[in-house]
Amino acid sequence: MEVVSQNRSFGGEQVVYKHSSNTCACEMTYAVYQPPQAKDGPVPVLWYLSGLTCNHENAMTKGGFQEHAAREGIALVFPDTSPRGENVADDEAYDLGQGAGFYVNATCDPWRQHYRMYDYIVNELYSIIAETQPVQDRHGITGHSMGGHGAMTIAMRNPDKFESLSAFAPIANPTRSDWGRKQLSAYLGDDESTWAQHDSTLLLEEHGWKGDVLIDQGSSDQFLDLLKPEALADTMAKRRQPGQIRIQPGYDHSYFFVQTFAADHVSWHAERLLQ
Amino acid sequence: MEVVSQNRSFGGEQVVYKHSSNTCACEMTYAVYQPPQAKDGPVPVLWYLSGLTCNHENAMTKGGFQEHAAREGIALVFPDTSPRGENVADDEAYDLGQGAGFYVNATCDPWRQHYRMYDYIVNELYSIIAETQPVQDRHGITGHSMGGHGAMTIAMRNPDKFESLSAFAPIANPTRSDWGRKQLSAYLGDDESTWAQHDSTLLLEEHGWKGDVLIDQGSSDQFLDLLKPEALADTMAKRRQPGQIRIQPGYDHSYFFVQTFAADHVSWHAERLLQ
Repeated sequence: MEVVSQNRSFGGEQVVYKHSSNTCACEMTYAVYQPPQAKDGPVPVLWYLSGLTCNHENAMTKGGFQEHAAREGIALVFPDTSPRGENVADDEAYDLGQGAGFYVNATCDPWRQHYRMYDYIVNELYSIIAETQPVQDRHGITGHSMGGHGAMTIAMRNPDKFESLSAFAPIANPTRSDWGRKQLSAYLGDDESTWAQHDSTLLLEEHGWKGDVLIDQGSSDQFLDLLKPEALADTMAKRRQPGQIRIQPGYDHSYFFVQTFAADHVSWHAERLLQ
Repeated sequence: MEVVSQNRSFGGEQVVYKHSSNTCACEMTYAVYQPPQAKDGPVPVLWYLSGLTCNHENAMTKGGFQEHAAREGIALVFPDTSPRGENVADDEAYDLGQGAGFYVNATCDPWRQHYRMYDYIVNELYSIIAETQPVQDRHGITGHSMGGHGAMTIAMRNPDKFESLSAFAPIANPTRSDWGRKQLSAYLGDDESTWAQHDSTLLLEEHGWKGDVLIDQGSSDQFLDLLKPEALADTMAKRRQPGQIRIQPGYDHSYFFVQTFAADHVSWHAERLLQ
């Protein structure tokens, strides 16, 4: 583990780490924010999974989460969105390959050697955070767009590992969207039965989520057709899933949207994690 | 005037504009944040001048000012730091030419045709903001690094135009720093008497500032030797200038530092502008 950078932020420390990942078979980068309260003992931790084209840095610099995490006394983890490197398979499209891991374990060539973001988050990085950071065994998870998809699918499949769940404009029904069908077919192959465990709407329909869920979605989001919040809303209502999807008037898909509701999400997780 | 982008942010609007500048003889870009309160009538406005290598975008996306401006009900203006374009003189160094206007009116070739950032801010953009935005005739000014230098020198020379003044890690004594001597000599020539009006410490010594001033400076700033806060602190003390220089332990020169104290500065200006 190597420290790439360290900056004081809101009385805490924003640190970027680089490590050799066994799961992804390449070097991976992630960022951790430790609030000032971590000096006095372990704190709960909120995972933030980023969207297409992002790496560990975007939300760390543009999300505005640190201020709220410092107020609430919770740590933040910002993983990368895919394996990286010259020897890692890639595609010219922005929505496949590097920057677009979709939080799955790829089973098809040329992706399967490195594209194991599901295992990387759930097992390898989860263990690293637990072992190397002053955090409690109280984890929440959120994310934006492809990262909202990652947060929801990972939480629903691992309710023993995550206590609280929220999302910003998640890709909610990827098995029925061009943000999903293309990638799931490339990474997992044509057998669509293997896709279902990576679709929030289908997972919610089958398993539900043990707690309540908070989802924010801008009404002026330029990618509404690809995100399909209506499928998730429909399933939440049918299943009587506790939680709320808030349609935020005039907000788009940008970090200005994420930043605006970052305080709500951090407080919401803190209420559920600080018990 | 052309709208380049518009994003809802904290109930207000973050807009980027492009216009043909008479002063700089090129196309210039600037950003304005209007808080939700601007819908009900004109609001005071806080100018934020950025530092070396930045354009209008850095603080707009990484400074975290909008949240505080929305809470306080003040507008924000983020100008660019220099003229731009293929036909605009430049230098290979990051600290001269494009991205490094130093908020002066250049008198030497090849700079004098476009590098008129002092007049651009004080006159052209100031008038554009007053005429096209729902703002009161109550302006505050702040900035970071080279932009802190710009804010302090511009405010002290134009106390009729600005009511409140603060700075983040300003270049405080450029006539005695390598961040200053090189640029002032390139833009203004070798007659050092013309440099004094672009040095906060010298201006403060001669004129003082009509109000109190708030300056934050990280103790772990990697550029402390170039910023020279001790010269400004010395002059403030000698002159009994109302205000405070706060040395913030462990903070560096990054946007993590700016973000951490953005709330304090916005509130501080709001207290002085909302009267």
